[in-house]
Amino acid sequence: MKKLINAVDDVVRESLAGLAAAHPDVLRVSLDPVYVVRADAPVPGKTAIVSGGGSGHEPLHGGYVGPGMLDAACPGQVFTSPTPDQIEAATRAVNGGAGVLHIVKNYSGDVMNFEMAAELCQAQGIEVRSVVIDDDVAVENSLYTAGRRGVGTTVLAEKICGAAAARGYDLAGVEALCRRVNANGRSMGMALTSCTVPAAGKPTFSLGEDQMELGIGIHGEPGRERAALQPAREIAERLTGAVVADLPFRGGDAVIAMVNGMGGTPLLELYLVYGEVERILQRQGIRVARRLVGNYITSLEMAGCSVTLLRADEEMLARWDDPVLTPALRWGI
Amino acid sequence: MKKLINAVDDVVRESLAGLAAAHPDVLRVSLDPVYVVRADAPVPGKTAIVSGGGSGHEPLHGGYVGPGMLDAACPGQVFTSPTPDQIEAATRAVNGGAGVLHIVKNYSGDVMNFEMAAELCQAQGIEVRSVVIDDDVAVENSLYTAGRRGVGTTVLAEKICGAAAARGYDLAGVEALCRRVNANGRSMGMALTSCTVPAAGKPTFSLGEDQMELGIGIHGEPGRERAALQPAREIAERLTGAVVADLPFRGGDAVIAMVNGMGGTPLLELYLVYGEVERILQRQGIRVARRLVGNYITSLEMAGCSVTLLRADEEMLARWDDPVLTPALRWGI
Repeated sequence: MKKLINAVDDVVRESLAGLAAAHPDVLRVSLDPVYVVRADAPVPGKTAIVSGGGSGHEPLHGGYVGPGMLDAACPGQVFTSPTPDQIEAATRAVNGGAGVLHIVKNYSGDVMNFEMAAELCQAQGIEVRSVVIDDDVAVENSLYTAGRRGVGTTVLAEKICGAAAARGYDLAGVEALCRRVNANGRSMGMALTSCTVPAAGKPTFSLGEDQMELGIGIHGEPGRERAALQPAREIAERLTGAVVADLPFRGGDAVIAMVNGMGGTPLLELYLVYGEVERILQRQGIRVARRLVGNYITSLEMAGCSVTLLRADEEMLARWDDPVLTPALRWGI
Repeated sequence: MKKLINAVDDVVRESLAGLAAAHPDVLRVSLDPVYVVRADAPVPGKTAIVSGGGSGHEPLHGGYVGPGMLDAACPGQVFTSPTPDQIEAATRAVNGGAGVLHIVKNYSGDVMNFEMAAELCQAQGIEVRSVVIDDDVAVENSLYTAGRRGVGTTVLAEKICGAAAARGYDLAGVEALCRRVNANGRSMGMALTSCTVPAAGKPTFSLGEDQMELGIGIHGEPGRERAALQPAREIAERLTGAVVADLPFRGGDAVIAMVNGMGGTPLLELYLVYGEVERILQRQGIRVARRLVGNYITSLEMAGCSVTLLRADEEMLARWDDPVLTPALRWGI
């Protein structure tokens, strides 16, 4: 295992210390329990948004904390759910009196621990609503999930709902928008190589030199198919085709399109894939209204990519365009 | 070789097509000869800035084209210098009548081809000045370089000089600022793994499972030392120590600090390294005024990182903070 780390047990804590040191104007990090929070939290009267999940998917979620996006993020150990006490403490820290939305990726541990934290907070008089993101079209049920996994649409939901909260939407309004984003977002990913969890010290799975895994999860969970490595054009067809067919997206739809890197694939390749995806969508009359190409929801150093499409109405596009100031997404500020 | 590509010969052209498709509001791509140019070029009366070099270092340079940074970028094939005709055409395309600055990383092929292009442009009445960036402290002379290699300071120079040109600095003013940035910037990098050039089809070099290369170049050129893999803390000490000692940076200096990923190292690790670098600088009384952590000048999918420090005066910091709108760096717009 070759990684830029010190001791395996310290990876998450030390990485968060670096995140805090690099972005003192935007966020701060609590270490006991562990969470990342907006530097100016709580914002009185604003609906707050908390997300979280296992570490190893950076910039998700800590890199999305800041004005116009998340109020707090709760990172677990690598590929491990955050605990209820982390989530409870973060929820209390950001509650500005207008309630808190939990955005939760659909993994059994995350869902359970966010539910427990929500109950603890509600018992203290904090209004909490939760939206579970389950946008991965690859498989029904998976290694850590009942139903569909939550992946790329989470990034888009956090941006759009964060902007809505900044605009003054109340908790019910932010929740409704988040459900609409989830209902209209679909994703699928693939891998060329495995990642290595630091505590495991060896690759999660192995793929032959001429193999790829289609429909992989962000923790290396098995996908739809292990297949012979194909050109980027075919891979883009497979991923985009599955995503488009599922909703389904139709000619005339406007979408926000994300081509996301799994962590170990260079931008040179991600842009090449994006070109293929946009061509496929154009052919079907689907209009790409906004784009995002890069590493946004990763799986450590896994090589591979995922495609996310969100059928976006005018409100979603407007909230997408609203200003945001976080380590990983920033514009208008 | 596992890559998200189609045919090896089409990688650069197809990736640029994707870049253009993803950022139609910011830039466009010319395919014959190949260059990336601001969508609104030429900007009349503004000093223009052109950079370029081999592909495989994305987002450098195409990802830095846009208002507040580069007017054009000339990408060669992977790890191959752009040709004089590319550079000449890009320079003509962005000349707004106020002259053009070439920012050139110190690699023999780049320097030679930018020189030839500058002469061709000057013969046509376009005033061209050139600044060669040579900030890599690792080695004197290298596989493709006489003198020191040009690496991370290039990113900072392009941002700061791009802002100066946007502010209305004349060509001599932008050139002088660029020379000052180069004189005050130092970098050093390291690798955990090799990258694979698509046309070669196999790794550029090999490192044992317990080895790293300190002082590596961005094309996998040999560095100072092949050593046993060490904890991130030691690696940060080695890189930062060499950089600090070289200028030298002293207590009381204000710096812009960049921890850059080589392409295959996850953000989780880069932030961990950043935390170590900032602690080392604090210990020496060096004040980190601005920070940048992520993949900014890469070497395909190489795992590893580099540290760049720029001793920054008030003018550099102000130009750093100025608005920028490019695919890879964006703020204030």
